[in-house]
Amino acid sequence: MFKATIADVAVFRDSIIAIAELIDEGIFKITKNGMSLLAADRAMVSVVDFKLPATVFEEYKVEKDQTLGVNISNFVSVIKRAKPEDKLTFELKGNTLEVRMLNGGARKFVVPLLDIKGEEIPPIDQLAFKAKVKVKVDVLKSGVEDANVVADTIVFHANDGTFRMNAAGDISSTELVLEKGNDSLISLEVDGDVKARYPLDYLRKMIKASKLSDEATISWAKDYPLKLGFKDVDKVEMNFILAPRVQDD
Amino acid sequence: MFKATIADVAVFRDSIIAIAELIDEGIFKITKNGMSLLAADRAMVSVVDFKLPATVFEEYKVEKDQTLGVNISNFVSVIKRAKPEDKLTFELKGNTLEVRMLNGGARKFVVPLLDIKGEEIPPIDQLAFKAKVKVKVDVLKSGVEDANVVADTIVFHANDGTFRMNAAGDISSTELVLEKGNDSLISLEVDGDVKARYPLDYLRKMIKASKLSDEATISWAKDYPLKLGFKDVDKVEMNFILAPRVQDD
Amino acid sequence: MFKATIADVAVFRDSIIAIAELIDEGIFKITKNGMSLLAADRAMVSVVDFKLPATVFEEYKVEKDQTLGVNISNFVSVIKRAKPEDKLTFELKGNTLEVRMLNGGARKFVVPLLDIKGEEIPPIDQLAFKAKVKVKVDVLKSGVEDANVVADTIVFHANDGTFRMNAAGDISSTELVLEKGNDSLISLEVDGDVKARYPLDYLRKMIKASKLSDEATISWAKDYPLKLGFKDVDKVEMNFILAPRVQDD
Repeated sequence: MFKATIADVAVFRDSIIAIAELIDEGIFKITKNGMSLLAADRAMVSVVDFKLPATVFEEYKVEKDQTLGVNISNFVSVIKRAKPEDKLTFELKGNTLEVRMLNGGARKFVVPLLDIKGEEIPPIDQLAFKAKVKVKVDVLKSGVEDANVVADTIVFHANDGTFRMNAAGDISSTELVLEKGNDSLISLEVDGDVKARYPLDYLRKMIKASKLSDEATISWAKDYPLKLGFKDVDKVEMNFILAPRVQDD
Repeated sequence: MFKATIADVAVFRDSIIAIAELIDEGIFKITKNGMSLLAADRAMVSVVDFKLPATVFEEYKVEKDQTLGVNISNFVSVIKRAKPEDKLTFELKGNTLEVRMLNGGARKFVVPLLDIKGEEIPPIDQLAFKAKVKVKVDVLKSGVEDANVVADTIVFHANDGTFRMNAAGDISSTELVLEKGNDSLISLEVDGDVKARYPLDYLRKMIKASKLSDEATISWAKDYPLKLGFKDVDKVEMNFILAPRVQDD
Repeated sequence: MFKATIADVAVFRDSIIAIAELIDEGIFKITKNGMSLLAADRAMVSVVDFKLPATVFEEYKVEKDQTLGVNISNFVSVIKRAKPEDKLTFELKGNTLEVRMLNGGARKFVVPLLDIKGEEIPPIDQLAFKAKVKVKVDVLKSGVEDANVVADTIVFHANDGTFRMNAAGDISSTELVLEKGNDSLISLEVDGDVKARYPLDYLRKMIKASKLSDEATISWAKDYPLKLGFKDVDKVEMNFILAPRVQDD
């Protein structure tokens, strides 16, 4: 048995839209603590780690742990039909998930559940980064979109006093610099001078999740995965892991 | 002689835009009572029955009944050039229709009239339906767009206490239910349990006319045409007839 | 040495966007009086004459006259990244132009300068027109967009009391008439009855510059180039020259 109601349609909708940018099919885990999804994209370049705590739901009932295999591409087109003023309810019925959009009249979608196996996801909790910054999401979006004008990769670079995003293409180059003390640079922890390069196409998909939070946390190390996190306490947590683009600089 | 002026540009513009979704060429009938058009789409799956009463015009002069054969695709691109603050005037000049958009300066379009014959339209006034509901247009739009996420046809279904729109595709299904008493279900008249299926591509074009009214009237019967009407008293009346998609359910 | 700062991002941005509609590569001239560009489009049908006076800049330092060869298509994608609340600075560094967008954090783009030669531009200052009107830009936009619905050329036509824009296609025709005294016709100077035809594709690109000013000045003569000017005193001046479409009328 699983039944849940969420009134904050935007959080659910924006989460699924961001997940659907990377994941075609995924398994939601349902426990008494909430709903979660951990999945790698088809090319195995990125991992999505999504958690929706039970606290964000108005009503949340689960008897025993469940897994719901879902075609995310299909699911997102259903969830996009929810209006801001709707309440969303989810109910497990046999091998389908019933999604109701309540607001005066009742609209119901029945989404089939898939019999898919969870893939082996590398243990992302054990990643050890060398740099970690927390920035306002607008700055991250600017840096990524600026970079996209000139190149297809971006370099994240931090040292003791400064966080930089830069990119260089065949023609032009760009750089966004935040010095310690800048309002948009909320925190900066770095072990030396840490610089690594990542693909912009993935980052542009991931920053779709920036609607979930005012702040983004970026962690990385040289020639090592990057972790990008958006968190709204007691409401939602979305982390992305992204493989580096290793190049001779 | 025919000369008319309308200040409510939106009504005229939205009407022609909706008609142009289905009709390429059509014949406007001009009588002392107003302007009307009755035309079937090229595939003969739907009929548009449009009436603009003389009362909606600021000025309306017609000597004897006229017919104006118009290329609707061309006409709509002209009418879309009208701005909300313009007044629109129409004047028959030889075998052209002069359309003026007045607002400080004068802008004029000369639209050629076509020598086309009225097609034989089945007598739509004699259709006898078994179910008739009046709903808020937003509900109709939701039902049709929800259905479009999962399928290419929609089933309208009413019985004594309930009106439903539902659709089922290969993957998912959806249903919108309005119980008697719901604010969005303004009236419901039904003879038994009445259910029929219609193509969504046509319905999605027809609901473009929903700007004309806050309410829509839907009439249907099993394996029988559907009638969808939008009406704003003394201003505009747009009715669509749509052939059913007969299937073994 | 060249360094300049502009706070009015919109003026710079809208100017470059309009220039980029016609010009792929161009040479900005930098003198103590300001920045300017004079360039013909690749097909040699039009000329852009752009002037940004030093007065529009907050800071403006130039040691000696400079020329900056710029790939406009690339430059416009950089300039589009500026936000309304940014300050833009330009600084010549070797054979690159550094563009900074300042607003809390600092974002920098490095744009390479091209070693291109100025083309021979016909002496546009010596053009002698027979008609000159100043109109509100909204009227010009209406006339051009109306014409575009029915044809691919437009005729500008003035006589002692009237300014007309008209167009006739295979199917429909359109005309916008402004009589002397109309608020939208700010001034009208004409030597007789002057009528000439110009290509709409170019005019539609040029009116992108209409954001720069509330008024447009149009000068022309029979089978002779047209000049279209947008000017905001002490801020920006953009003139376009456009070859006529000579036809037997």
